[in-house]
Amino acid sequence: MNIAGKHYRTIWLEQGKVYWIDQRFLPFKLQIESCSDPMLLARAIKEMQVRGAPLIGVAGAYGAYLAAKMLAKKEVKISPASTAEFQHITDVILKTRPTAVNLHWAIEQQRQILKRCKSWSEAAEELRDEANRIAEDDVSKSKSIGEHGLKIIQELSKKKGGAALNILTHCNAGWLCAVDYGTATAPIYLAHRAGIPVHVWVDETRPRLQGSKLTAFELHEEGVPHTLIVDNAGGHLMQRGEVDLCIVGTDRTTRLGDVTNKIGTYLKALAAYDNQVPFYAAVPSSSIDWDLAEGRDVPIEDRGEAEILYVDGVCKEGLQVEIKIANPKSSARNPGFDVTPRKLLSGLITEHGVCKASESGLLSLFPEMKQ
Amino acid sequence: MNIAGKHYRTIWLEQGKVYWIDQRFLPFKLQIESCSDPMLLARAIKEMQVRGAPLIGVAGAYGAYLAAKMLAKKEVKISPASTAEFQHITDVILKTRPTAVNLHWAIEQQRQILKRCKSWSEAAEELRDEANRIAEDDVSKSKSIGEHGLKIIQELSKKKGGAALNILTHCNAGWLCAVDYGTATAPIYLAHRAGIPVHVWVDETRPRLQGSKLTAFELHEEGVPHTLIVDNAGGHLMQRGEVDLCIVGTDRTTRLGDVTNKIGTYLKALAAYDNQVPFYAAVPSSSIDWDLAEGRDVPIEDRGEAEILYVDGVCKEGLQVEIKIANPKSSARNPGFDVTPRKLLSGLITEHGVCKASESGLLSLFPEMKQ
Repeated sequence: MNIAGKHYRTIWLEQGKVYWIDQRFLPFKLQIESCSDPMLLARAIKEMQVRGAPLIGVAGAYGAYLAAKMLAKKEVKISPASTAEFQHITDVILKTRPTAVNLHWAIEQQRQILKRCKSWSEAAEELRDEANRIAEDDVSKSKSIGEHGLKIIQELSKKKGGAALNILTHCNAGWLCAVDYGTATAPIYLAHRAGIPVHVWVDETRPRLQGSKLTAFELHEEGVPHTLIVDNAGGHLMQRGEVDLCIVGTDRTTRLGDVTNKIGTYLKALAAYDNQVPFYAAVPSSSIDWDLAEGRDVPIEDRGEAEILYVDGVCKEGLQVEIKIANPKSSARNPGFDVTPRKLLSGLITEHGVCKASESGLLSLFPEMKQ
Repeated sequence: MNIAGKHYRTIWLEQGKVYWIDQRFLPFKLQIESCSDPMLLARAIKEMQVRGAPLIGVAGAYGAYLAAKMLAKKEVKISPASTAEFQHITDVILKTRPTAVNLHWAIEQQRQILKRCKSWSEAAEELRDEANRIAEDDVSKSKSIGEHGLKIIQELSKKKGGAALNILTHCNAGWLCAVDYGTATAPIYLAHRAGIPVHVWVDETRPRLQGSKLTAFELHEEGVPHTLIVDNAGGHLMQRGEVDLCIVGTDRTTRLGDVTNKIGTYLKALAAYDNQVPFYAAVPSSSIDWDLAEGRDVPIEDRGEAEILYVDGVCKEGLQVEIKIANPKSSARNPGFDVTPRKLLSGLITEHGVCKASESGLLSLFPEMKQ
C-alpha cells in the first residue's frame, strides 16, 4: 500500500535487516524501525510497534530468521548449545503475545525447518526464505479476499448507477494489521483501484480508536474517500439509507459461522439486519476455529480499564500526550471483543470465495475440514 | 442531589443572586458561579455552563427575573422604554440556544406575567416566584418519573432475589440536565435510597462523553455502584446476561411513541430487543411532540466534526487540555441524535405513569391530547 505516494509493506527484509512501521506513532508520525537483533524485534512485538494477527505471525517468522543468522556468525555447525539458544530466543518471541495463534504457528513452522538444516548458514537461508514465503502467502490471501469481496461491491455498485457505494467498517482490518491489502479493506482497495466509486464510513472504534487512527490513515494515504463517525452513529446512518454495505474483520470465526471481532461489531450487525444492509465478515482461513461450534463459547478477553479512562493524541504544541477523560473516581470494564451470531451475517468472504455464515457454507469452501 | 455529601441543585436563588454549577469543568472540578446581571446568565447558557433542556428553561426564567430586578433599581413604573429594555434582554437570553423549546416556553411565560404587573418591584417579585415555581415543577416531575420507574426496578429486583440489578443507561439524563433527580436516573436514585441493590453500566457516550464525565460523576457522588463502558460494549454484556434493564432519556418523543435521544440509543435498543432485556425511555411530558407521528420525520442535527476529532480531559500535570485523536487529514460526520422505533421499546415512563410506546399508550396518560 501507499504512504505519501510511496509503496510500503508493514514489515520487510532489506540487506539482512528487518524493517517495520512503528504503529504506535500513527497517524501522527511515520516512524520506520529496523534491527538485525531478534531480541529487539521481540520487544517491538511486545510493545505493539507491530500489531494485528497476521502481521505478528510474519514478524515472529522474521525473528526466528534473525536468531539463526546471529548464530551463524558465532559457529558453523548446529550444536546442542546453539540449538538451545535458538529455542530460548524463539521462546522469548512467543511469550511477547502468548495468545496470538499466528505467532505460535509461525515459530513452530521455523523450528520444524531448523530440524532439517545442517549448518547455521543453511538455517539462516532456509528460515529467511520461509519468513518471506509466510509474508507473501499473507499478501496473496489478503488479495484473494479482496478479489472475492470485489464482486460483492461490483454487484451493489451497479444498482447505484454510478453513485458512490457507502461501505461501513469497524476497527482496523486493514493492511496495517497484515503485510499488505488487509482483510476487510482489501475489497475496498481493489474496488477503488478498479475505478468503482466507493466511500467508507470509518467507525472510530473505542476504546483504542483503531478506526480514527489507523483505518482513516490507511484510506487517506490510498486516496479512498472516507468519513470518520463515532461508534454510536452507524445505526442512524443505516436507518436513513446512507450505508449500502458493511465489511468487518474477525479474530475468530467458529465452525458454525459465528464471528468474533472487535467489541461493537455485534451492534452494527444488528442495525444492518434491521435495515436490510448487507453485512459481511472478511475471514482468512487462519482465523477459522474448526474445533468450536457456538460463538457464545468463545472466551472474551477483559482488557484493562486504562484504555477507557485515558486516551492519547496530539496536543496543540504537537506533542503526543495521554489525558484522563472520565470521572476520576469511577472504574471501567473493558471487554475487547464480541460475537456476531451467524443469523445476522449476509456471508463470509474467505480467500477461497464467499459463503454463507454456516457450517455447510464454510465446508463447501474447505471440504478438507469435513470430519 | 449530593456532591461530596452536600445537597445541591444545578441552579438556585440565594439572596437575590442566581447560583449554578459550571458544568464545563465537571467531573474534574466543582465550580459554582453566581450573578445578578441577566446578561452574565445569558452568557452562561450560551457557553453551556448549564445544559440540558429542563435546566436551560429554568435558567431562562431566572434570567427574566434578574432583568426585572435590575430595572426595578432604575425606575418604579413600567414605561415603554424600560419594557423595551426588558424585551431586549430576554431576546438575548432566547438567542443563546435558539432551538431549546423549554427556554422559549419559559421566557414567554415570564413575558406574559410582566403584562399583569404595575411596577418593576412587583414584576421582580412575580417573576422570581414564577422562576422558582418552574424549578420546583421540574423537580416534582422528575421525582414522579422516578416513582413510576421505581416500580419497574422493584419488580425486576424481586426476580433477582437480592442480587444487584444491572441497569444500563446512555448519555446524561441525570440531575445535571435538570434541577434535581434527572429523568432516566430518577428511578435509579429512588431505588438506591430505598435500599434496592442496583449497579449501573454507564455508556461513555461519544463524542461528548456525557456518560463518563457527567453521569459517572453524579452516580459516584450519590454513592450508586456503577461501571463505565465504551458505547461498543453494551450489546456484548446483554448477550452474556449482564444487563437486566435499560433506561434512557429523550429529547423528543413522537405521538406514536418513537423516541429521539442521543446518538447510539437505537443500537442499544436493538441489542436489548435481541436479548429480551427490558428497555424504557424516561419521557417528561414537555418532550412529547404531539404534532409529529413518525420518528423518521424528526430532523437530526448534524453537529460539527470537532467533537469527534478532538477530546478534552486532564493531563498528567492536572491541566484541562484538548488533544487531537484522529488522523489529521480525515474529516468526520457527527449526527447528534437517533430515533429508536417504538417496536423496540418496552415502555415510556412519564410523570403521569408508565405506558406502552404507542399513541394509545400516551393518550391513556394524557387524555387531554386527544384530537
